Amino acid sequence: MTNTQVTLVQIDNYGPWTVTPEPRREADLQTMQSRLYADISQFVGNRGGYTFFTRFDNMIAVTNGLDLEDHALLQESVGNRYPVTLSLGVAADASPVQALADATARVQDAGSAQDEDRRECLEGRAVDATDRTAEDVQIAHFDVINATGTYTDELNAFDTFIEIEQGYAELMRHMRHAHESLSFFVGGDNIIVTCPDLDEGDYEEAIYHVEEAVDVELQVGVGRGECAHDAGFAAKHALETCRSDGTRVELEW
Amino acid sequence: MTNTQVTLVQIDNYGPWTVTPEPRREADLQTMQSRLYADISQFVGNRGGYTFFTRFDNMIAVTNGLDLEDHALLQESVGNRYPVTLSLGVAADASPVQALADATARVQDAGSAQDEDRRECLEGRAVDATDRTAEDVQIAHFDVINATGTYTDELNAFDTFIEIEQGYAELMRHMRHAHESLSFFVGGDNIIVTCPDLDEGDYEEAIYHVEEAVDVELQVGVGRGECAHDAGFAAKHALETCRSDGTRVELEW
Amino acid sequence: MTNTQVTLVQIDNYGPWTVTPEPRREADLQTMQSRLYADISQFVGNRGGYTFFTRFDNMIAVTNGLDLEDHALLQESVGNRYPVTLSLGVAADASPVQALADATARVQDAGSAQDEDRRECLEGRAVDATDRTAEDVQIAHFDVINATGTYTDELNAFDTFIEIEQGYAELMRHMRHAHESLSFFVGGDNIIVTCPDLDEGDYEEAIYHVEEAVDVELQVGVGRGECAHDAGFAAKHALETCRSDGTRVELEW
Amino acid sequence: MTNTQVTLVQIDNYGPWTVTPEPRREADLQTMQSRLYADISQFVGNRGGYTFFTRFDNMIAVTNGLDLEDHALLQESVGNRYPVTLSLGVAADASPVQALADATARVQDAGSAQDEDRRECLEGRAVDATDRTAEDVQIAHFDVINATGTYTDELNAFDTFIEIEQGYAELMRHMRHAHESLSFFVGGDNIIVTCPDLDEGDYEEAIYHVEEAVDVELQVGVGRGECAHDAGFAAKHALETCRSDGTRVELEW
Repeated sequence: MTNTQVTLVQIDNYGPWTVTPEPRREADLQTMQSRLYADISQFVGNRGGYTFFTRFDNMIAVTNGLDLEDHALLQESVGNRYPVTLSLGVAADASPVQALADATARVQDAGSAQDEDRRECLEGRAVDATDRTAEDVQIAHFDVINATGTYTDELNAFDTFIEIEQGYAELMRHMRHAHESLSFFVGGDNIIVTCPDLDEGDYEEAIYHVEEAVDVELQVGVGRGECAHDAGFAAKHALETCRSDGTRVELEW
Repeated sequence: MTNTQVTLVQIDNYGPWTVTPEPRREADLQTMQSRLYADISQFVGNRGGYTFFTRFDNMIAVTNGLDLEDHALLQESVGNRYPVTLSLGVAADASPVQALADATARVQDAGSAQDEDRRECLEGRAVDATDRTAEDVQIAHFDVINATGTYTDELNAFDTFIEIEQGYAELMRHMRHAHESLSFFVGGDNIIVTCPDLDEGDYEEAIYHVEEAVDVELQVGVGRGECAHDAGFAAKHALETCRSDGTRVELEW
Repeated sequence: MTNTQVTLVQIDNYGPWTVTPEPRREADLQTMQSRLYADISQFVGNRGGYTFFTRFDNMIAVTNGLDLEDHALLQESVGNRYPVTLSLGVAADASPVQALADATARVQDAGSAQDEDRRECLEGRAVDATDRTAEDVQIAHFDVINATGTYTDELNAFDTFIEIEQGYAELMRHMRHAHESLSFFVGGDNIIVTCPDLDEGDYEEAIYHVEEAVDVELQVGVGRGECAHDAGFAAKHALETCRSDGTRVELEW
Repeated sequence: MTNTQVTLVQIDNYGPWTVTPEPRREADLQTMQSRLYADISQFVGNRGGYTFFTRFDNMIAVTNGLDLEDHALLQESVGNRYPVTLSLGVAADASPVQALADATARVQDAGSAQDEDRRECLEGRAVDATDRTAEDVQIAHFDVINATGTYTDELNAFDTFIEIEQGYAELMRHMRHAHESLSFFVGGDNIIVTCPDLDEGDYEEAIYHVEEAVDVELQVGVGRGECAHDAGFAAKHALETCRSDGTRVELEW
C-alpha cells in the first residue's frame, strides 16, 4: 500500500510583497520564482523527492525520504538567499490527495498565506525511517502520443499548447476526483501523477476518459518505489516501453 | 493599432535529449529548464520584453525592442552555458496569434523540433526601430478576485490549483478564438495576456464568459506601451485600481 | 587614447548582514554571492562589459556602453530578486586606476559600506554615446605558459593554486603601480587586465618582472575596442596566437 | 585528532572547451563557472561540507559526511545541467594538505586535466560513517581587523583589494608550509582555513607572521566539528567574540 509523503511549500505573504511599495517588474518576479523553484527541486530532488512548480507561490512536493530536519534546512537556506521566506506543511497518507489536504490544513492553521506575521512555519510529521517501504510511492508518467508530429511541427505554438493544456486540465480533474491522485504538468507534453495504489485498469480508464472528453491521446508508464525518484525513474523506463512498443499503459514493478 | 513582436523559443531536439542515453533524473530536468527560462526571462526582460514559460521546451516571448542581433546574442549565451541550444522564430503583427503563427512557421520550415541537424536557427524579422510606436503592445493582467480568501486559505492546495487552472484553461481558449490574444499563467492567480487593440467591452465580455463557463471571477487591468514592460507595468497599476476600488476592468492609457 | 569606464559595485551593508541575527551558513553566503556575481556578469556582459568578482562584496566592472539608466535597471532587478541591495559608482578616465578611484570616491562620499542608511546609491557619470571610440578600452589577457603540464597535472591542486596566486599577486601589484592597470584573476590560470594605452614593450617588461620576482612564466594577448567585450575578444584571439606560435606578447589591432 | 576528508573537483577538459571552436564570450564563462561553483557549494553545503572556488576549474571541498554515492549524484546532476562534466578525487588524512595531495593524485592517475577521454572519473575513498568523530574537522575563520574602516571606506576599491590579497597570499603560503593547512579567500576580507590539530599558539604565530611580512592585521576564530559546517559555525561564533572583545585568537570547543 502507498504511503505518500507530501509537502506544501508556500511563499510567505508573496502576493502583497509583489506589489510593495509598488508593482515589481514582472520579468524579475518570473526569474525569481522560477529560480526559487529550481533550487527547491534540486534540494528535494537530490534526496530522492520530486517538486512541482504548480502555482509557484504554492508548490507541492513528494518528499518521502526527507525528514523535518531536511525541511528546516531548506527553509533556512532559502531565507539566507532570497528576498522571500517559505512555510512548509508535511503529511503522509495512502491517498496523495488526503496527504496534501492534511499538509495544507497545517499551514492554514498557522495563519493566512497573506498574514504578515506568519513566517517560516514548519508544521506536520514525516514518515519514520523505519516505516518506509518500497511501495510507498506510485508515480505515473503520462505523455501525449506523437505530440511532436501531431502538434508541435504542425500547429502554431499556442494552439499546440492549448491542446496539451486541455489534456492536462481534464486529466488533473479526473485523476483527483476518480483516483485520489495529484497530477502536474512538467513541461513539453509530460504530466507526472502521484497516485495511491492504482492498477492497470485504472490507468486505461483514465486514458479513455481523456480521449473521450477532449480528444487527446495519452500513454503512461507507471513505477513504484521507496521515494519519488525511484518510482518516477521506473515510470520513465516504462514509458519508454510504451514509445517503442506502441502500448498505452506499462507498469514496471 | 498594435504591432506585437512575438518570438518562439524552441529548445532543439529536447525530447530525445531528455532520454539519451537513458531517462535523465526528473529533478535535474526540472531544475535545468526552469533556470533556462529564468535566464531568458531576465535577458528579454531587461530589454523591455516579457517571456512566458509555456511548455518550457517551447517558450513564447513578446520582444518589441529586441532586434535580431539581441536574439543571436541570447542564442550564443545559452549555447555557452547550457547543455542544450535554442532555435528562435520572430514575427510581428497587429494580431498576436498571427505573429506567433508566423514565428512558428519560420521555425517549422527550418526543420522538426526533433531534427538532430536543426540547431540554433534564427528566422524572421524584427520591427524596425523607426516603426515602433507607443501603442505597439497591449497587455492585460488578470487575476482571480479574492483568490486567497476564497481558495488558498480554504481549500487544499490542489483543489485551489484546479479552480485556477479551470479559469485559465477557459480564458486562454476564449481569448485565443474570440480575441486573437495569447494568455499565459504566470503563477499565483495571475494570467497575463498579450492582445490586439481590444476595448473595455471585450474584456467585460471575456470576464463574463469565464464566470458563466467555470464560475471563476476575474478582474483585469490593461495597459499599452512601446514594449511589453511598459504596457504590462501600466496593466499592473490598473489592476491595483481594480483591487482597491472593486472594479472589474480598468484601462490605463 | 583609452577612456575606460569603470563601475564599482558594492553590496550595501553586507558584512553586518552576514552575521545578523547570528552568523549565516557559509555555504549559503558563498552560493548567494557567486550567483549575484553571475547575474551581474551576465547583465553587464550582454551589453558588452566585463565584471570581475574581486572581493564579491565589492566587484569591479568595465562598463563602456552602459549608461546610468542601465545601471539603475541592474540595481532594481537585483533589489527585486536578492536579499541584499547594491550601490554603484561610475567614472571614466584614460587611466583605469583613476577611473576606479573616482568611482570609489563617489560611493564613499554617499556613506560607509556599513552604513545602514546608505542603500542603492547610484553616483557618477557614464561616457556619452557620442564620445565613444574604438580605442576606449584596452584589455590584456594573460595566462601561465603550459600551466596544465607544469602544474595542474604535476603538483597537488593547492600547490598549483599557490603558484598561480603568486603570479597573480605580483602582476596585480606591478600593473597597478607601474602601468595604472587593474588586474583580475578570472579562474584557471587566466588574468584579465584593463589597461591604459600601453605598448608591446610595457607588456614584455611586466612579463619579465613577474618571471624575475616569482618565477612564473606568463604570456599575453592584447586587444582594443569600443567596449570590454570587443577588446577582450581580440585579446583572446591574440592569446591563441601566443599559444600556437610560442610567442610571449601578441597585440591584435 | 583531525581526519579531514578533501575532495578535488576538476572540470574535465575545461581549458580546451573554452576556446572551441573559437574563444567563448568571457562573461558567459564567468557566469557559467560561478553558477557551477554555487551549485556545488549548495549540494555539498546542505550536507555539512564547505566548497571553495579556488581556481574555478579546480575547486577544493571539505566533504566529511558525504560518501561516494553523494559524489556520484553530484556528478550526474551537473552532467545533466551543464555543458561540462566533473571529475572528483576523494581522500582523508590528519593533514589537509596530505588529504588533498592524495585526492589530486587519484585524479591525475586517471588522466590529464586536458585529456578528452577522461570524463567523470570518481576516485578515492570516503571516511566510513562509523569512523567519524566530533574532532574530524578543524576550521579557522580569519578576517582583517577593521577592514571597512581602514581600507574599504578609505582607499580605492582596488588598493583595498591589493591589501587583502597580500594578506591572503602570505597566509596561504605560510599556513600550507608551516601548518599543513589549506587557506581559501571567501570574499570580503574573510579567509577560511581547514587545519590539522593546531593550537592557540600556532594561530598567534601565523597572525604575527602575516603582520610582520605584509603589515596586514588579522584575527581568527577557530572551531571543531564532525563536519566543515559544524566546525566553521563554531569558528564564526568565535570570530564574533574577537570582534566584540578585541581579542586576536578565539578557540571555541
